[in-house]
Amino acid sequence: MATEISTLGEFGLIKHLTKHIELKNPETKYGVGDDCAVLNYGDDKDILVSTDLLMEGVHFDLTYLPMKHLGYKAAMVNFSDIYAMGGMPKQITVSVALSKRFSVEDMEEFYAGLQLACDAHGVDIAGGDTTSSRTGFAISITVVGEVEKGKAIYRNGAKETDLICVSGDLGAAYMGFQLLEREKEVYYKQIETAKTDAERMAISQPDFSGREYLLERQMKPEARRDIVLRLREAGIRPTAMMDISDGLSSELLHICTQSKCGCRIYEERIPIDYQTAVMCEEMNMNLTTAAMNGGEDYELLFTVPIADHDKIEQMEDVKLIGHITKQDLGCALITRDGAEFELKAQGWNALK
Amino acid sequence: MATEISTLGEFGLIKHLTKHIELKNPETKYGVGDDCAVLNYGDDKDILVSTDLLMEGVHFDLTYLPMKHLGYKAAMVNFSDIYAMGGMPKQITVSVALSKRFSVEDMEEFYAGLQLACDAHGVDIAGGDTTSSRTGFAISITVVGEVEKGKAIYRNGAKETDLICVSGDLGAAYMGFQLLEREKEVYYKQIETAKTDAERMAISQPDFSGREYLLERQMKPEARRDIVLRLREAGIRPTAMMDISDGLSSELLHICTQSKCGCRIYEERIPIDYQTAVMCEEMNMNLTTAAMNGGEDYELLFTVPIADHDKIEQMEDVKLIGHITKQDLGCALITRDGAEFELKAQGWNALK
Repeated sequence: MATEISTLGEFGLIKHLTKHIELKNPETKYGVGDDCAVLNYGDDKDILVSTDLLMEGVHFDLTYLPMKHLGYKAAMVNFSDIYAMGGMPKQITVSVALSKRFSVEDMEEFYAGLQLACDAHGVDIAGGDTTSSRTGFAISITVVGEVEKGKAIYRNGAKETDLICVSGDLGAAYMGFQLLEREKEVYYKQIETAKTDAERMAISQPDFSGREYLLERQMKPEARRDIVLRLREAGIRPTAMMDISDGLSSELLHICTQSKCGCRIYEERIPIDYQTAVMCEEMNMNLTTAAMNGGEDYELLFTVPIADHDKIEQMEDVKLIGHITKQDLGCALITRDGAEFELKAQGWNALK
Repeated sequence: MATEISTLGEFGLIKHLTKHIELKNPETKYGVGDDCAVLNYGDDKDILVSTDLLMEGVHFDLTYLPMKHLGYKAAMVNFSDIYAMGGMPKQITVSVALSKRFSVEDMEEFYAGLQLACDAHGVDIAGGDTTSSRTGFAISITVVGEVEKGKAIYRNGAKETDLICVSGDLGAAYMGFQLLEREKEVYYKQIETAKTDAERMAISQPDFSGREYLLERQMKPEARRDIVLRLREAGIRPTAMMDISDGLSSELLHICTQSKCGCRIYEERIPIDYQTAVMCEEMNMNLTTAAMNGGEDYELLFTVPIADHDKIEQMEDVKLIGHITKQDLGCALITRDGAEFELKAQGWNALK
């Protein structure tokens, strides 16, 4: 008997595999199902732990992502999981598997990127390991962070009438990815068709001017430590929070499912950068789809009590995009012309 | 400029990459260089964290290792790192990358193996994640454990005249591996040469009777929780400890290098099972080499003050194999006929 994994999908598979798990240790406060596990070892602090496994050819493409950027991004993506619980990252351990095509210098670049990200966020590299792989590059990073005892922000605390907020803007990382993929194809085609040395010499590097922001969002994402700190300063405690890695649509559904509620968000309020809009136009893609399902934004999505409305309105780089409803109303996007579209859990089903 | 990684080797590479790392957070007590990172979050406990990245075709062979055994082994190998610090494992997080050839049932088996190991050692699966891989199977497990504050046992505490002890026996996992590899080759040759259906039907499964122990050591290793508990009960506090994953020779050199000392161990005292000896004889391999460099034993190697001599002699399943010396005497194995052989850091340089 062999059931294909695509019948369950990525989220379905992990749910299926972990549904019977019972937590037995008093030190395990929260297990599978949020951005981090929450562990209870100290008197004042809870400990947050999260792991990511990144595979070459699935999660990154070394044709255009330099090793230093890869190290930076791999670290940031993990910090983002700690911020998504309202915590502060403190340590990472890094395991790397590499094939023979990688050199010591490649690894130095990768570690330089890791270190740069760690320095910017006050994180120590507390463990490191390298091993070999038959093909390609694999990275596993575990991040450990802390949060005041009992103050971790889960996905399951959103309540009816809560406001839905998002930091930064959405869709730019995805359009950066589309741009890089397009230029890669153009480049390879030029190489294929070039017959003489002169033709090969004439192959042009892509011109990315005016699209720098898209590339930066794709290749050098920044985890939103600043938002967590500013929420604390403003005395705002989100009722639910997560980071946007798979796309706004998918993440909102996670929050609503776990919080047993519904939501309404408004197309006109979704924050989108000018470059993202221009790129969508150029590529003839739907802008709202890019912003809703693109993924890799690493912005924070959170809900706050309606009483915090005025405080949120004053927060820089945070946008109020909708509100939480009763569960039976479902989850929907209200378009500019007032139509309702049900949100779909697209995620980025890499297992299909 | 591209320096091949094999010029540094596995241990050299990680040393090279991490030598400039400075730990800045007060919560980071010990970073790269031991079985675990040691973190300081609570008042009574220190937290231990370790990660392993296991790649198909490098660390395991699914031709003969069933998915359930793989899950079990992957968990055990991680628990072993916590025991090697004198701690108790409490949680694991599991990330898995898999290609399309794996089914839901494969993953169920893998998780069943994980759960079996976790139940036996009182560990919670506190985080899980699946993603896709272009080829093969990759597993990243992070284990979190605890140890009484300030009581973690490092590799760097061995002192001159300390006794060197090892649990269980050595070399069996390696000979199990040799046996499985040999039978795999035989099996594939039979398939290759079989021309008729009758010939294909007649292909025999290998007969492993009398070699069960070797297979069990290779396919179902047991992390030595019992030894850690019995050392505590006996009031013995090792001065240095680690688990034997790369082979006794390599691990002893780690302890001696980090403790700035030398050692003498005695060939005749190295614990070896009868089946290991028979298999070496049959395969015309050197028994001492198998025991010294084989690896994957997941036994504990530790040093104790000479005052604990009598206590150690009374401990079941622990063998005293030598003693720590001044550093300038180097590290050597004394053979049965009194010759001295310098220990070499063979490890299992998978990067060559």
